[in-house]
Amino acid sequence: MRNSNREWVFAQRPEGEPDMDSFELRESDVPEPRHGELLVRVRYLSVDPYMRGRMRDAESYAEPWAVGETMAGAVVGEVVESKGDAYEAGDLVTGNGTWADYSVLDADSVAPVDPSVADPPASLGVLGMPGRTAYFGLLEVGDPNPGDTVVVSGAAGAVGSVVGQIAKLSGCRVVGFAGTDEKVAWLTDDLGFDAAINYKAVDDYRAALDDAAPDGVDVYFDNVGGPITDAVFTKLNLDARVAVCGQIAHYNDEGVPTGPRKLPQLIPVRATVQGLLVQDFATRFEGATEQLGEWVASGAIRHRETVVDGLDNAPEAFLGLFSGDNIGKQVVAVADSTN
Amino acid sequence: MRNSNREWVFAQRPEGEPDMDSFELRESDVPEPRHGELLVRVRYLSVDPYMRGRMRDAESYAEPWAVGETMAGAVVGEVVESKGDAYEAGDLVTGNGTWADYSVLDADSVAPVDPSVADPPASLGVLGMPGRTAYFGLLEVGDPNPGDTVVVSGAAGAVGSVVGQIAKLSGCRVVGFAGTDEKVAWLTDDLGFDAAINYKAVDDYRAALDDAAPDGVDVYFDNVGGPITDAVFTKLNLDARVAVCGQIAHYNDEGVPTGPRKLPQLIPVRATVQGLLVQDFATRFEGATEQLGEWVASGAIRHRETVVDGLDNAPEAFLGLFSGDNIGKQVVAVADSTN
Repeated sequence: MRNSNREWVFAQRPEGEPDMDSFELRESDVPEPRHGELLVRVRYLSVDPYMRGRMRDAESYAEPWAVGETMAGAVVGEVVESKGDAYEAGDLVTGNGTWADYSVLDADSVAPVDPSVADPPASLGVLGMPGRTAYFGLLEVGDPNPGDTVVVSGAAGAVGSVVGQIAKLSGCRVVGFAGTDEKVAWLTDDLGFDAAINYKAVDDYRAALDDAAPDGVDVYFDNVGGPITDAVFTKLNLDARVAVCGQIAHYNDEGVPTGPRKLPQLIPVRATVQGLLVQDFATRFEGATEQLGEWVASGAIRHRETVVDGLDNAPEAFLGLFSGDNIGKQVVAVADSTN
Repeated sequence: MRNSNREWVFAQRPEGEPDMDSFELRESDVPEPRHGELLVRVRYLSVDPYMRGRMRDAESYAEPWAVGETMAGAVVGEVVESKGDAYEAGDLVTGNGTWADYSVLDADSVAPVDPSVADPPASLGVLGMPGRTAYFGLLEVGDPNPGDTVVVSGAAGAVGSVVGQIAKLSGCRVVGFAGTDEKVAWLTDDLGFDAAINYKAVDDYRAALDDAAPDGVDVYFDNVGGPITDAVFTKLNLDARVAVCGQIAHYNDEGVPTGPRKLPQLIPVRATVQGLLVQDFATRFEGATEQLGEWVASGAIRHRETVVDGLDNAPEAFLGLFSGDNIGKQVVAVADSTN
């Protein structure tokens, strides 16, 4: 065990697109777990688009980070010291930690990681918050019926890739938007999407949807916003459902972004648009994770993680989310094993 | 009975704000009812904002009017000749007719008008489609709970004035937006709204809402769109519901109007926004009209009609909807009695 710890601190609120100036790596002491806590050696840490919201000094569902605070997020770690009843040193767990070599986790809110189901990074993706977001967002808010056309933006991301596959399991036609030919190929060739659109290679999203979703759109799972969403709204069918999960195109906007007004479009089709936050389904997380684990174990749902090596590179991994560097879930490998 | 009929014909598709060029009054023969139809002398006809949509050559929930077609809409009329089993000459009925002296109605889809409950024009307002829109839109889409704050735009209109009063009956705090001091006074002094905002006299809608809705907005019933709606969206509470009933601010727009993007605002509060069309509740119309009739008879719900005299003036009455000339329901008195 190292004697000292390194942790990334939130150094400065960004204006517009964040850059390295928002982050500072600090040396610190390895923290001491208190009663009910676990000290873990961080193996993998998660970087997620929602974290951009916590960088704003504005009230929202997640408390804003204070400048000087350690960057927080989901981690997979190996217990090195347990002051919680259910775990002991050597256990692999996942929970809310920090961007650090060593992190202290609340023993009551961690979950065990079973490498026999999937490699540990999957616990930050398909078997973690992104997978559960896809599960509840699609099934509860999107409410897909067999034969429906489901469109997903950010389809090759951690959430979107799972959304599309659950939609296929639900008997739907599935169309994804993604930003590279490699992503598009992954969606259609490996994940079973019926169609995928490389939005960076297409000028007219509406025309692309006319081809890919000829019967219109019954469910739209939106991770992105912006012009993709504008086009999808013109294709909504009667009683369509829109799950607004993310709006990554707007996270770096300063001020309120503008675009085509969508409320007038909702009346003729009586569409329902709902903001989605996975925490609202917290009481049902266990069942969802179990179902997702079964699908992953059986191969019914495939997953992919983009792994950046080294705690040093955590900010770059985060920043890369906004340029679409990741396929599937973006994680940072902090340590291969306890050392 | 007159020997000839006059009817308003849809003469020309408007671009932007419609004017008199869209209408032409024609002399015609008094129509002959066929089996299952009623010939009525039109007493009152209804002009409604949704009719602007039918003037567009675009697929929507209501079929576009063809140029040359007689203007259609709800009427109250007195039966002069019945070829339907349930009615006879002299009966007062309401149903879908035309902007004309005489109109033929489908006997199966008309309803009797009972002047002992309310004056006949109320059958085109609180006891007609606008009242039912308010009833189902608020109770089913808005889903108000006691203690909720309900905000209504177009609050002094045919729908909004009923929405606010049902919200009061539901135990809510009710705030209305309207466009004149007279309307505001009607809402607060006569209809029991807790607050009303004259949006033409106020610069900062958000600040006005901070005062009028200090606990935020749980239900927003939107008849208007535009900057009022933009302000209300910044005040939505957790799990807020938005019923999008009308967007009159945009009905005369050519092309797609733009404004602040609202989807990013939905995520933190997990708000639900739903387009509303009263026809979706058609199987429950009878019960709603009965309940509204009881409320009106008991004085629990008040209503007002703005009556323009003479078939000649029907287009002006319609055009006045877009400048807010009406308080409560706008109707046109075509004839006082059969003659």
